[in-house]
Amino acid sequence: MERMKLPPVPLTLEGASVLHQMVRVQWSALRKVSPDEQMVIAQEAQAVFADASLSAMYALLGHKGDLMFLHFRKDFEQLAQVQLDLSHLRLMDYCEVVNSYLSVVELGLYESTAKTYQALAERGIEPHTPAWQQGVEEVLSRQRQAMAPRLYPPIPANRYVCFYPMDRRRGEQKNWYMEPMSERARMMHEHGLVGRRYADQVKQIISGSIGFDDWEWGVDLFADEPLVFKKLIYEMRFDEVSAMYASFGPFFVGLRFPSEDLGAYLQGKLPALRG
Amino acid sequence: MERMKLPPVPLTLEGASVLHQMVRVQWSALRKVSPDEQMVIAQEAQAVFADASLSAMYALLGHKGDLMFLHFRKDFEQLAQVQLDLSHLRLMDYCEVVNSYLSVVELGLYESTAKTYQALAERGIEPHTPAWQQGVEEVLSRQRQAMAPRLYPPIPANRYVCFYPMDRRRGEQKNWYMEPMSERARMMHEHGLVGRRYADQVKQIISGSIGFDDWEWGVDLFADEPLVFKKLIYEMRFDEVSAMYASFGPFFVGLRFPSEDLGAYLQGKLPALRG
Amino acid sequence: MERMKLPPVPLTLEGASVLHQMVRVQWSALRKVSPDEQMVIAQEAQAVFADASLSAMYALLGHKGDLMFLHFRKDFEQLAQVQLDLSHLRLMDYCEVVNSYLSVVELGLYESTAKTYQALAERGIEPHTPAWQQGVEEVLSRQRQAMAPRLYPPIPANRYVCFYPMDRRRGEQKNWYMEPMSERARMMHEHGLVGRRYADQVKQIISGSIGFDDWEWGVDLFADEPLVFKKLIYEMRFDEVSAMYASFGPFFVGLRFPSEDLGAYLQGKLPALRG
Amino acid sequence: MERMKLPPVPLTLEGASVLHQMVRVQWSALRKVSPDEQMVIAQEAQAVFADASLSAMYALLGHKGDLMFLHFRKDFEQLAQVQLDLSHLRLMDYCEVVNSYLSVVELGLYESTAKTYQALAERGIEPHTPAWQQGVEEVLSRQRQAMAPRLYPPIPANRYVCFYPMDRRRGEQKNWYMEPMSERARMMHEHGLVGRRYADQVKQIISGSIGFDDWEWGVDLFADEPLVFKKLIYEMRFDEVSAMYASFGPFFVGLRFPSEDLGAYLQGKLPALRG
Amino acid sequence: MERMKLPPVPLTLEGASVLHQMVRVQWSALRKVSPDEQMVIAQEAQAVFADASLSAMYALLGHKGDLMFLHFRKDFEQLAQVQLDLSHLRLMDYCEVVNSYLSVVELGLYESTAKTYQALAERGIEPHTPAWQQGVEEVLSRQRQAMAPRLYPPIPANRYVCFYPMDRRRGEQKNWYMEPMSERARMMHEHGLVGRRYADQVKQIISGSIGFDDWEWGVDLFADEPLVFKKLIYEMRFDEVSAMYASFGPFFVGLRFPSEDLGAYLQGKLPALRG
Repeated sequence: MERMKLPPVPLTLEGASVLHQMVRVQWSALRKVSPDEQMVIAQEAQAVFADASLSAMYALLGHKGDLMFLHFRKDFEQLAQVQLDLSHLRLMDYCEVVNSYLSVVELGLYESTAKTYQALAERGIEPHTPAWQQGVEEVLSRQRQAMAPRLYPPIPANRYVCFYPMDRRRGEQKNWYMEPMSERARMMHEHGLVGRRYADQVKQIISGSIGFDDWEWGVDLFADEPLVFKKLIYEMRFDEVSAMYASFGPFFVGLRFPSEDLGAYLQGKLPALRG
Repeated sequence: MERMKLPPVPLTLEGASVLHQMVRVQWSALRKVSPDEQMVIAQEAQAVFADASLSAMYALLGHKGDLMFLHFRKDFEQLAQVQLDLSHLRLMDYCEVVNSYLSVVELGLYESTAKTYQALAERGIEPHTPAWQQGVEEVLSRQRQAMAPRLYPPIPANRYVCFYPMDRRRGEQKNWYMEPMSERARMMHEHGLVGRRYADQVKQIISGSIGFDDWEWGVDLFADEPLVFKKLIYEMRFDEVSAMYASFGPFFVGLRFPSEDLGAYLQGKLPALRG
Repeated sequence: MERMKLPPVPLTLEGASVLHQMVRVQWSALRKVSPDEQMVIAQEAQAVFADASLSAMYALLGHKGDLMFLHFRKDFEQLAQVQLDLSHLRLMDYCEVVNSYLSVVELGLYESTAKTYQALAERGIEPHTPAWQQGVEEVLSRQRQAMAPRLYPPIPANRYVCFYPMDRRRGEQKNWYMEPMSERARMMHEHGLVGRRYADQVKQIISGSIGFDDWEWGVDLFADEPLVFKKLIYEMRFDEVSAMYASFGPFFVGLRFPSEDLGAYLQGKLPALRG
Repeated sequence: MERMKLPPVPLTLEGASVLHQMVRVQWSALRKVSPDEQMVIAQEAQAVFADASLSAMYALLGHKGDLMFLHFRKDFEQLAQVQLDLSHLRLMDYCEVVNSYLSVVELGLYESTAKTYQALAERGIEPHTPAWQQGVEEVLSRQRQAMAPRLYPPIPANRYVCFYPMDRRRGEQKNWYMEPMSERARMMHEHGLVGRRYADQVKQIISGSIGFDDWEWGVDLFADEPLVFKKLIYEMRFDEVSAMYASFGPFFVGLRFPSEDLGAYLQGKLPALRG
Repeated sequence: MERMKLPPVPLTLEGASVLHQMVRVQWSALRKVSPDEQMVIAQEAQAVFADASLSAMYALLGHKGDLMFLHFRKDFEQLAQVQLDLSHLRLMDYCEVVNSYLSVVELGLYESTAKTYQALAERGIEPHTPAWQQGVEEVLSRQRQAMAPRLYPPIPANRYVCFYPMDRRRGEQKNWYMEPMSERARMMHEHGLVGRRYADQVKQIISGSIGFDDWEWGVDLFADEPLVFKKLIYEMRFDEVSAMYASFGPFFVGLRFPSEDLGAYLQGKLPALRG
């Protein structure tokens, strides 16, 4: 029997819809508002962030923004509404959204993919036939249920966030999308081993943005201590998959604070993370 | 008989003229306007979007714009007038056009091209002679009539749009424009097979922008559910033609709403798609 | 006799000095001005564009500008004065110059160059000696007279313009400036053949901008119908010289209208081209 | 015994958290403020810069900013608070933060790394096991103590600063992160020899920014005379590690002045460096 | 005797400190000022430009700025003060500095370098020893005196200036900084021959900006007639050193006018160059 040509596309699971918003505060205008008014403005804004597992607020370091708003939602409908809600806050009279990122929580299933494609091929099922689609959907559906907590996670409660978008290289000589599945799976596996060594210090959420934003993936790292971001990313940079196939967008580092303390932040005191 | 050198240029058909406009709303200024005034402003704007098959309005996700206006018109004269009409709306006192894209609906005829060039060569007709021009024009004219509905389509009525511009690579080693016609036709054919698998979920409109805007093509995908954009584009990225020869500009994702509901949108409620 | 090393630099003729100005109109501010005042503003501006062969006005499509002003002048002194004149118009209280391009009409003489260098070499005249300079200057002077109408052309009167700047590639492996003169001449000749096929539909004016602006050349195409821009440039992109050695800047497409009708344009009606 | 594969990641020590802020002064608005008011504004700002070893003020040359503020702090918490403090100064009503850089003082231990990894391997300790982690942490801890003055340095008191960010190349053919440790160590050693020749004229502080900002490292050079920046960097550019593996971001050159003299600076007199 | 390894770094001499400032005029605001006031504003500004050999004023062509200010000074202290002086002029209420370039007049001594290094080696003096430093410093000191007029030149009085910054390529395959000294010296020599042919028409001042600004060198060309800029730079582009190893930043072309005539310029009349 002739060997079937298996698809090169890894299976993925998609979960929560994610929007990052980087916001510059016009401090000069804001300071002209009385402290009482500032508290009213902060309270109105707080409503959008009422559920801390769905929307979080970070004080950014550097000039790329003063605040970062992070939203996890069920779908793009809800994200679009939260974006519109924010734009109608009085807070936004004193702020400008200067950057953003749109993506969907993604779990790459490199290991199951190879097994699934192989198993279907052994059953003589041609790729992309209805039987094949069904076989794949069964696997995805099973995994989707098993992985539900990782597909729709709460926003981790850590003090620090590090966000950056990234691409896989499509160079003239080195091209991720032309590497065989087995090579990609091997490199992703080695890459995962590094992440696992940091698992107790850093929580990582990968989101896919092909078709949604200007890079292919977004990476959010959450930790209680920021030096671990540097260590983890530096160590990963020596992995073959990062050394050769990764290109990175801008990096954003922020300190989370409770939305209840937005008023204090606006008045110049960086609030601690409660609890 | 010596073998004729056939032109490397694929035949294309051109249809509707297309303008994308990405628009940032100055919410702070707009909220200072009374609700009644806002409705007047919205109604005036609505006139430009009266025919939903010709002009559509989308709420964009992220900071690259709040709204995207999409216009399909007969020619550039009409596009230029609609652009001028928009700039004179009161709405535009509260908006800034921050991005745009100019193109023309295009159908690439890779398969007919090879056949046509071959047939003319077999009749001994030299490329670019009047007889050859006439032979080519006959094919184009026949196809233009057959394809009229795809050349001048109404704007699809789906909730979601995904727009991005793209180029074919002209690298020092890998250069789309130096590949033989047969290789390009083969790669485009394989690429098309992926698209066809998604045909019931995604409507795709390709427009050409060589000579009109800064990338070579614009791609508009229309669907009722946005995850399919990611799946389709990710799967295509493993095609040879995309993996090796595509480079992508910025991505824009929006939710369509009826222009009658612009007033509701301006007041902070994301309108549903009717019908 | 040892073979002389001929210079690699093609001879060129320089003509009119050219300035493109892309202008964004602040419609919101302008609409606050009474129609009568707008007409006064338009009339004042019109003076700069009195001679339609020297200065032209185009309505641009897209967000890169609302208007493009194109000026052909005798020299940079006159261009600098026209730029200063424009900046002092009341019109410019409602406009911002957001882009520009500075260049000089250029005719490249690839074919004469080879002949001239060869002829001088055969007479035993060493490159860059006074005798050689004189021999070259004689050729240039003769050509300059013969080509005067093409060196100092009026701005073509067509409805549509397409402007873009471009470079020749200087890559690590493919480098235009390291190709032998004969190869460059061959590629330019083939490139010219395509242009000639479109000569009755498109008028092309090449201007050189090495030392003047950020790309090496500017290209202006003039036509009565814009689709021909796409066809011509797409066909040329398969030429070796474009496929391998061209890189392109932004594209600007505009519709010319008579400067007498600037008032109508400002009031929202795209004027037709008269005559 | 099979040879162990040693990790490719060099050991590093992290010290002070560093924030660079580039600030544009709105001179026109500031000059409308009375001299007395300007002194009040300057005095309020001075408080943030009270400890000259922790925060410094530089007059930048060129248009990338008028002032550069440099902050060394214990951790990101303190940096975030100092950034917030600055944003609440009256001074910032007349200033805009137009650029910034976030990093952490870093000492690369290329030489100890090789020895440490080798020694642990000779004791049969597998990389990334708890015993290995402990062995590495012992080395780091010892070095951290020995190097404390270099990890938490005061801001050098010199008149001139030169700051720039940089990356190591990750090209398709030349890729720093795929070079063997021994090659990287050799190149870094040679690079260090150049620096050492300038040690009496230039004080260099390297900070790491992987995971924090858009380049991998920040470089601050401090000297009493600026020409030495050019000499040092030019000489280094011929090192293999710079010639082949370095890419550089923007350069900022500034003249330090005492924060007590901010008022004089605002009034147009460049203050000397005291002491 | 083993052959000594000679340093790859060419000797350079440094002279005047140079600041280019590109300035956009806010014509609309300026025209609201009475002609008398405009003359007062112009007179105040003129003081900074009193010595025409130290500071010059150019009307720029295009939208990259309306004016370019060029300053030659003894050192960075003086440049910093002149920058601060300018920012305090009333003129700057109507202007914005939109670009700048910081550099130091540089004479590259490729030919002496080889001779000097060779001579020291022949005397058995090891590179970078005190004796070697002294030997080198003697050569530099002698040359510095001989070249003083070229190191501290007055700003040439010509009508036209052409300014652009540039880098030497550090590609993966073609890398200026990894070429042997002899090859670099040969290419620079050939490059210089072209310049010499234009010496009577163009005055060229090279300034080094490694460590000071974002490119490695700045090039200023001065001439009475601008076409010669194009001819010279085009001819040079075919030199090996430019064709393969040069990358160019933005180009700025301006017309000098006497600072005494700034008032006339502000009122819309491009002043002639006197004398």
